Amino acid sequence: MTMIGPENVDQARLLRLLRDDGPRSRVELTDALGLPRARFGVEVERLAAQGLVEVAGPAASRGGRRSSLLRIAGQVRFGAVIVGEGQLDVALTDGELSVLARHAEPIDVRLGPEAVVGRAIELLAKLRVEAGPARLTGVGVALPAPVAVRDGTPVSPPALPGWRQFPVRDTIAAELGCPVQVDNDANVMALGEQHAGTGRAFDDFLYVKLGNAIGCGLVLGGALYRGATSGAGDIGHLQLAEDGPLCVCGNTGCVEAYCGDAALVRQAVTAARAGRSAALGDRLAAAGTLTIADVAGAATGGDPTAQTLVRDGARRLGQVLVGLVSFVNPGIVIIGGAAPGIGPVLLAEIRGVVYRRSAPLATGSMPIVLSDLGDEAGPVGAARLISDQIFATR
Amino acid sequence: MTMIGPENVDQARLLRLLRDDGPRSRVELTDALGLPRARFGVEVERLAAQGLVEVAGPAASRGGRRSSLLRIAGQVRFGAVIVGEGQLDVALTDGELSVLARHAEPIDVRLGPEAVVGRAIELLAKLRVEAGPARLTGVGVALPAPVAVRDGTPVSPPALPGWRQFPVRDTIAAELGCPVQVDNDANVMALGEQHAGTGRAFDDFLYVKLGNAIGCGLVLGGALYRGATSGAGDIGHLQLAEDGPLCVCGNTGCVEAYCGDAALVRQAVTAARAGRSAALGDRLAAAGTLTIADVAGAATGGDPTAQTLVRDGARRLGQVLVGLVSFVNPGIVIIGGAAPGIGPVLLAEIRGVVYRRSAPLATGSMPIVLSDLGDEAGPVGAARLISDQIFATR
Repeated sequence: MTMIGPENVDQARLLRLLRDDGPRSRVELTDALGLPRARFGVEVERLAAQGLVEVAGPAASRGGRRSSLLRIAGQVRFGAVIVGEGQLDVALTDGELSVLARHAEPIDVRLGPEAVVGRAIELLAKLRVEAGPARLTGVGVALPAPVAVRDGTPVSPPALPGWRQFPVRDTIAAELGCPVQVDNDANVMALGEQHAGTGRAFDDFLYVKLGNAIGCGLVLGGALYRGATSGAGDIGHLQLAEDGPLCVCGNTGCVEAYCGDAALVRQAVTAARAGRSAALGDRLAAAGTLTIADVAGAATGGDPTAQTLVRDGARRLGQVLVGLVSFVNPGIVIIGGAAPGIGPVLLAEIRGVVYRRSAPLATGSMPIVLSDLGDEAGPVGAARLISDQIFATR
Repeated sequence: MTMIGPENVDQARLLRLLRDDGPRSRVELTDALGLPRARFGVEVERLAAQGLVEVAGPAASRGGRRSSLLRIAGQVRFGAVIVGEGQLDVALTDGELSVLARHAEPIDVRLGPEAVVGRAIELLAKLRVEAGPARLTGVGVALPAPVAVRDGTPVSPPALPGWRQFPVRDTIAAELGCPVQVDNDANVMALGEQHAGTGRAFDDFLYVKLGNAIGCGLVLGGALYRGATSGAGDIGHLQLAEDGPLCVCGNTGCVEAYCGDAALVRQAVTAARAGRSAALGDRLAAAGTLTIADVAGAATGGDPTAQTLVRDGARRLGQVLVGLVSFVNPGIVIIGGAAPGIGPVLLAEIRGVVYRRSAPLATGSMPIVLSDLGDEAGPVGAARLISDQIFATR
């Protein structure tokens, strides 16, 4: 495996500056790093020799000596693989983590890890042809499951039957000959928010990922926080009530059993069959099944039963957030993965619960917002995940 | 104000090494810091000139050239002020944070901040006479309230009426002419655990402080985590049930209203008056009042009513911990402030709830233990608080 990357802390800082802020002049960078000019020149040359940094052209004059612009080399490519429960989403980014090429397709994760990982590798190869000649510098992978990040494997994944301890990282790394990092999808999307979303302005934020599974990524003190065994943010199976609905995990009253997409759809089907909602009943009759988009559509269309379902789920989620927010005192909470159209209703309910109940020091001025990254959070976050690893000293 | 402290990162690391690990040889320290020998010598001289480091004698020979032992200078003193709801606890430590002199006395915090802070300054002066000539290098202060750490003031403190936004830090600093840092008591005790307790072996732990007020200190990634506005760990007023008992804060069903010492005592008095416990009734009749020590004594003496009270409180606390532990995935949970004798009962109940309900990745091998520091956690933690600030680059 070709191991490229910074040789010291200054090179690592330079790479992250160029990744996060884009091309900058030598003068600015020398100042930002606080290095003597000669030493700065040496570090840049070493990174250029590795194909990581290049000259982008002359910098705008600041009155004195002309300076040149530096940037992450154009041949740097990060791969991003987002495994969803029903979808495989693969992308290639440049060194500033802009998506250059992307392909998503339906997939059945129950086919097992070999099939899904194999298909992801095929898709990466196709995208590399599309995006033009370059070097695959590393690949970030998001799984809809708790991940033992040190091992690069999923842990007891209810959503990924048959994937338990499959060596996702090592399999892809062996096949592609580059560094690979694997993490939980909520963590990856939090990294996407940190790089390109509202999270960029905050050192401390929570990213709550909605969907069939509900997870949370914690960015604390400017870095993703994974906890002692990379289990931080694993909130989907917290028990809200012992006598609550049955969850896929086998317990009762879990967060996901109240507010996960599948749980909302299940309740919507029950309501439609019982004749409690004409809108849901019509959709069910037409398609033979309901999706979260149907529930969202009915709710935004004014159906009171669908609205109640969405509001009840959001209120339960708000109850969980009250505790988390008081506990870690984030600067902002960002909510991603909301079904189209229901964001405002969700936010209103969640804010109502959180602001009413949290400790004043934790929520005095804490915003709760919807992610504005949409489905870019995954690919950008996966690229950030692997670039954080490569653009660091080992 | 005399500002002393390290001039660069290497000096700061050297001071923290000597503080945390005690006297070490020049050879070991040079290796640990990865500095050229000549450069190391320069940094040591500069710290010695400031009176922060001194030679402690010759080091044990490692076969080669004799090396000398360095240590934090003997004249370094940290002051510690722990304001409790009913007690003022003041101590002086040396540069390795060992307590040299200490005085605790009952106090009524409702006398107001001027009186209490004034008395703490008097006591520090007395202790400085006792402990012998030295220089007061800095003072750490713990308050039983949320603290705006950046401002050095308590925030909306239910336990400290009249203290709201009183400039605790600046008042003490102006009086004593040295740096002062103020924080919440649970945070300070977590720092004590990190320095001298079970927490020393963990990068990520939660310290839960029991008492009338219940708080939590979070050490994450090796450092105290305070959140965006220093409100992290503020768990005492999370609502466990809307129809729960009335809390001192005015809401219902707060954690403190179930498991705080004052809440347990209140329930014990009710039980004693209702004739539901002979043991508690006898104690109440004899003293006219009950304390948490009475409840603990009755429970450890086998009184079933007192045992039920303690167990119910512990179970409620366990329910809160389930969420926190799943959320931050700490390496260990340390519980401090338990009334004498009831630790084992508390632990058994808390462990029962947490291990049964938490996400497996978060608690697979996570210990829950009682603090073994006893009442040293406060003074050591307050000294650590201010020494962390002084032994850092500004």
